[in-house]
Amino acid sequence: MLGLMQNFPLTVSMILRRMHSQYPNKTVTTLRRDIYHQATYAQTVARANRLAGAIKLAGFRQGDCVSTLMWNSQEHLEAYLAVPAMGGILHTINARLSEAAIQVMLGETLPRLILVDETLAPVLRKTTLPASVQAVVVAGLHKDAQQLDPAVEGIPWLDYETFMASGGPEFNWPELDENEACGICYTSGTTGKMKGVVYSHRSTVLHAMSMLFADGIALSEHDTCMTVVPMYHAHGWGFPYASCLAGAGQAFSVRQSDPKTLAALIEYAGVTLATAVPTVWINLLEKLRSGEIKPDTLASLKSLPVGGAAVSADLLNGLLEYGIKVRHCWGMTETSPLGLVSTRRSWLNDTQWAEMSMRQGLPQIGCEVRVITDKGTLAPEDGKSTGELQIRGPWIADAYFDPDSESRRGGENCFDVDSQGRRWLKTGDIANISPDGYVKIVDRSKDLIKSGGEWISSLDLESAMAEHPAVHEVAVIGIPDPVWQERPLAFVSLVDNWDQPQPDFAAFLEARFPRWQIPERFVILKELPKGATGKLNKARLRQITNSA
Amino acid sequence: MLGLMQNFPLTVSMILRRMHSQYPNKTVTTLRRDIYHQATYAQTVARANRLAGAIKLAGFRQGDCVSTLMWNSQEHLEAYLAVPAMGGILHTINARLSEAAIQVMLGETLPRLILVDETLAPVLRKTTLPASVQAVVVAGLHKDAQQLDPAVEGIPWLDYETFMASGGPEFNWPELDENEACGICYTSGTTGKMKGVVYSHRSTVLHAMSMLFADGIALSEHDTCMTVVPMYHAHGWGFPYASCLAGAGQAFSVRQSDPKTLAALIEYAGVTLATAVPTVWINLLEKLRSGEIKPDTLASLKSLPVGGAAVSADLLNGLLEYGIKVRHCWGMTETSPLGLVSTRRSWLNDTQWAEMSMRQGLPQIGCEVRVITDKGTLAPEDGKSTGELQIRGPWIADAYFDPDSESRRGGENCFDVDSQGRRWLKTGDIANISPDGYVKIVDRSKDLIKSGGEWISSLDLESAMAEHPAVHEVAVIGIPDPVWQERPLAFVSLVDNWDQPQPDFAAFLEARFPRWQIPERFVILKELPKGATGKLNKARLRQITNSA
Repeated sequence: MLGLMQNFPLTVSMILRRMHSQYPNKTVTTLRRDIYHQATYAQTVARANRLAGAIKLAGFRQGDCVSTLMWNSQEHLEAYLAVPAMGGILHTINARLSEAAIQVMLGETLPRLILVDETLAPVLRKTTLPASVQAVVVAGLHKDAQQLDPAVEGIPWLDYETFMASGGPEFNWPELDENEACGICYTSGTTGKMKGVVYSHRSTVLHAMSMLFADGIALSEHDTCMTVVPMYHAHGWGFPYASCLAGAGQAFSVRQSDPKTLAALIEYAGVTLATAVPTVWINLLEKLRSGEIKPDTLASLKSLPVGGAAVSADLLNGLLEYGIKVRHCWGMTETSPLGLVSTRRSWLNDTQWAEMSMRQGLPQIGCEVRVITDKGTLAPEDGKSTGELQIRGPWIADAYFDPDSESRRGGENCFDVDSQGRRWLKTGDIANISPDGYVKIVDRSKDLIKSGGEWISSLDLESAMAEHPAVHEVAVIGIPDPVWQERPLAFVSLVDNWDQPQPDFAAFLEARFPRWQIPERFVILKELPKGATGKLNKARLRQITNSA
Repeated sequence: MLGLMQNFPLTVSMILRRMHSQYPNKTVTTLRRDIYHQATYAQTVARANRLAGAIKLAGFRQGDCVSTLMWNSQEHLEAYLAVPAMGGILHTINARLSEAAIQVMLGETLPRLILVDETLAPVLRKTTLPASVQAVVVAGLHKDAQQLDPAVEGIPWLDYETFMASGGPEFNWPELDENEACGICYTSGTTGKMKGVVYSHRSTVLHAMSMLFADGIALSEHDTCMTVVPMYHAHGWGFPYASCLAGAGQAFSVRQSDPKTLAALIEYAGVTLATAVPTVWINLLEKLRSGEIKPDTLASLKSLPVGGAAVSADLLNGLLEYGIKVRHCWGMTETSPLGLVSTRRSWLNDTQWAEMSMRQGLPQIGCEVRVITDKGTLAPEDGKSTGELQIRGPWIADAYFDPDSESRRGGENCFDVDSQGRRWLKTGDIANISPDGYVKIVDRSKDLIKSGGEWISSLDLESAMAEHPAVHEVAVIGIPDPVWQERPLAFVSLVDNWDQPQPDFAAFLEARFPRWQIPERFVILKELPKGATGKLNKARLRQITNSA
C-alpha cells in the first residue's frame, strides 16, 4: 500500500516560492567593477520571472538546455533559478576551459540560449556555436556599452537587462517531475576526458536541504553567504541554492577572489560564511598577518567551509586566531558536491578533535561511504587501511551524460555495484576512515593535479608534450605549492638525436592549454625512472622532487 | 530528460543503516519501574534485526500492518525501526482511547501482530481482536512475570524478549519504494470520527530531516532527546526518527510524565531537549519554583519544542529563568506533525521577537501555508486577517485512510485544491499570519476540546448525553484549565416532565468514554441559549463561563 501523503515534488520552483513568500527582504550583493549592486530576494524572484518569460519568448521549450559562461553574480543567480524552474537544464560552463573544450561541451548540450558575462564574451566570440543557439545574452554591461555587435553568424547578441525586460512580470512556473534534469556540469574529475554530470531537481533540493543541517554547514537565515568558488563548479558547491532555501543573504564578487576585494565585500554585506578553495584563504591570512587587511573588516565572518583541497593546520589555526572557523569539506562535481563535512562528534575531547578536524569529514546525513582496498575487499574503519573511497546517496551521480547513447547514460566503469545491488560512485580518491567515521583523503588514484581548486590532467599534458619532436618520454606530476596547493611539474627525456637548444615547451603548449594549466618548470632527465614492468614510475619522480 | 543521479530511496532503512554505521555508541535510556535500562544504537539496531526476523517468522508478509499499543520505550523504538524497514506498516494505537475505539481501528488496519506494553495488556485483553492477528507480544514484563496466560481465543500471547530472541542476528532489509506506506496513525483531530493518516517512508524521512535544520529544531548528534509526548501520537512528533537520523541520544519514561520522574531521567541521561504538551512543563515549572526540584538536576536541559497547545508567557519566561528555552511548534497528525516551528527572524529586535515568539511559528522549510477567509479569499498577511489555516508540503497528508475504498483514499472534503491544481490540507484551525510570516492560531473551527494534548470530541459527548432520558438539550464546551489547558464542561436542559433527582451523568458516560474525557461538571440550565436560526449558541455559553 502506498502512503497517503502529498505528492509534493522537490524542485527548484519550491525554492523560488519560498524566497518570495518567506524572505522577500533578504539581499543579494554583487560587487562588480568597484560598485556594489544590491537586489532583494523579492526583486530577484521578480527578475527571474522576467528572465523566464524572455527565455520562453526566445524559443525555449521545456527540457531545453540553457548554457551560462558566467562568474558569480546576481544575473547568474537569476539563471540558476529561472532556467530549472521553467523546466530547462542549466549548463554552467567552466570559464577556465579552452575555447576548444567549450565548443565540445556546447556540441553535446546544444543549448537554446547562452548567457555570458561581459568579461567572457571575447572567449565565446572565438567559439563556433551550435545551430541550436537562438541568442547570446551578455550580462554585466556598462550602460555605455549596451550597443552590442550585430548578430554574429546570424545569432543575435543581446544585452541581459534589455533581454530580461522583454519578459512579463509574472511567469507561470510549471509543476515539474522532481526527477527531471535541472542542471548539467562537466568535470574532468575522474579522467582527463570531460564528462557531464546531470543533476535532477530532487538531488539539487535534497543537497540544499543537507546544507541546513545543524551538524554540518548549518546554513541559516541569520547568515550572509559569500560564494567565492565559481558558480560554474558543481552549482557553486550548492551554496547559492542552499542560501535561497534557508533565506541567507548572499554576496558575489564576480570573478574577483583577491583578499582585498573579498574583505571589502565581507565588510559591506556583513558576510558570515564564505566558501572557496584554500588558496583564497591562504592569501587572505597573509594579508591579515601583514596588517594590510584589518581584522575589524572581517568581524562578521565566522565560518569557512573549505573544499577542493586539504587545509593545512597553519591555515586552520591561523584563521581561528581571527575568530574564523575553517571547516573541511569534500566533494566532487559527481556528489553535488558535498559528500563529507567535518563536524565535531560529541564524544571527542579537544586533542582528538584537533586531529580529526584535519580529516575531510563525516558523510553528510543522507550519504553513505565505504573504502574498497586494492583486493576488492571492504577496508576496516581503523584510520589506517586505505583504498578507494566510494559513496552513495540521493545527490550522488548514477551515470555520466552520454549524448550518443539512447539512455544518455555513460561512464559505467566509474560505478560499482554491491552484493545487494546498490550502486556506488568510485571517487578515484584514496582514503581511510577513522573508527569515529572521519574520512581522510590520502592520495588520488587518478592522474590529476589540482591547482587552485581546478583540475589539470597530467595525462593531457603528457599527450600533448609527446607530440613535440624533441620529446622521447614525458611525465607530469603535481608538486606542492604554497598558494595553489599543487602545480604541474614536467619531467622530459629528449630524443637521442636532438641537437638543438632546449625547446620552449611552455610556448609549445600555449596553443592547446589555458596558461594556468601549463607547468612553470620542465626538468630534463637523461632517462625517466621506470618500474619493474617498464612503466613510468611517478612515485619515484615525486621522491626526487621531495628530496630536492 | 531525467537527471542521472542515484535512485536512492528515502526510507526508514536508511535511518537504520546510519545509526549502525555512524552512531553505534549513542544511547537509548528507558526508565521503567524506577530502573534505568540502557542500550546503544548498535544494540538497538541488532535488536531491530532480531525483531524483524521474529515478526517474519510469525507469518508477516511485506505490506502487512503491525500494531503497537505502547508507551515510550526501547521496545517501541525498536518497532518504529523494524516494522517499516522490513516493509510493514506501523500502526501506533492511542493508548488513551476506549476499547471500542481500539477495536474499530484494528478492524480497519487488520494487523498481523500486536505489540503491547505490559501496562496496557489488560486493555487489549478486553478487546476482540481481528482474525488477522497471529500473536500478541507483551513488552516490559518483569522476569518473574514472564509466564503469560495461554492463548486467548486461539491467539498466543508472548513475551517480547523471548519473541525477539527467536529472530536471527541479521535481517536482510528489503529495498523499498519510498512512497510505500510505513505508518498509520489515527486522529480525531478534524472531526469526531477517527481517521487514519498513512505516512510514507519518504514523508517520514523528509520530516525527520526537517527537524535537523539549523533554523528550526536543529536536532544534533550533541543532543539527547527525551520524547515525552506519547509515541502513539504522530510518530512521537517525529522526534524518535529525527534523533536516530541525527545520532542524538534518546530517553524514554514509558508512561510517566510527572515532574519528578522526568527530572530524574533528565539528570541521569543528560537530556538536552525534550518534547511534550505544555501541561507537562507547567507542572515542572511549579516544582522548580516550589524548590521540590533543584534547578541543578536540569542543568543539561536547553530546549523544549512545545506543541499541542499554545504556551503562556508565564511558562515561557518562567522556564527561561532556568536557562530552558521553550519553542512554539504547531502540527497535527496530518502534518507528520511539524508544520510550524518558531524561530527568530534575523531582522526582529528583542521586542518584536518577544511578541512573535508567542505565535505558533514559521512554516517549516519545505512547507507552504495560507489562510483562507470565510469568503474563500486569501487573507492578507497583516497579523489580523483571520481564516482557516491551510498547509501543503512533502510530509502533509493528501487523503485519509478509507479501508472500504479501492483507492484507500477518503476524507476528500478535508482538502482544498487551488487554481494551479495544488492540494492543501484544511487544518480546521483559525489563524492569521504576521507580515514576517509568523502564524498565530486564534481559534478552532472544529468542535473539539484539547485536554492535556489529547482531543475530546464535544460532538461525541453531546450525542451520548442526548440518549439519557432526562436530557432535553445538551452542549459541551471547552473551558480553560490551568493544568490540562482545557477541560470539557456540559450544559444541560432537562425534559419538562423529569421529576427525579439530577441524574449522575458522569456515571452514565463512563460506559462509553475513558474517564479523562468525561466532564467534571454538568450545569443545568432552564434553557440553552440559541442563535437567530435556533441553533445552539456555544459562543454565548463561553461568555457565561468567562464572566462567572
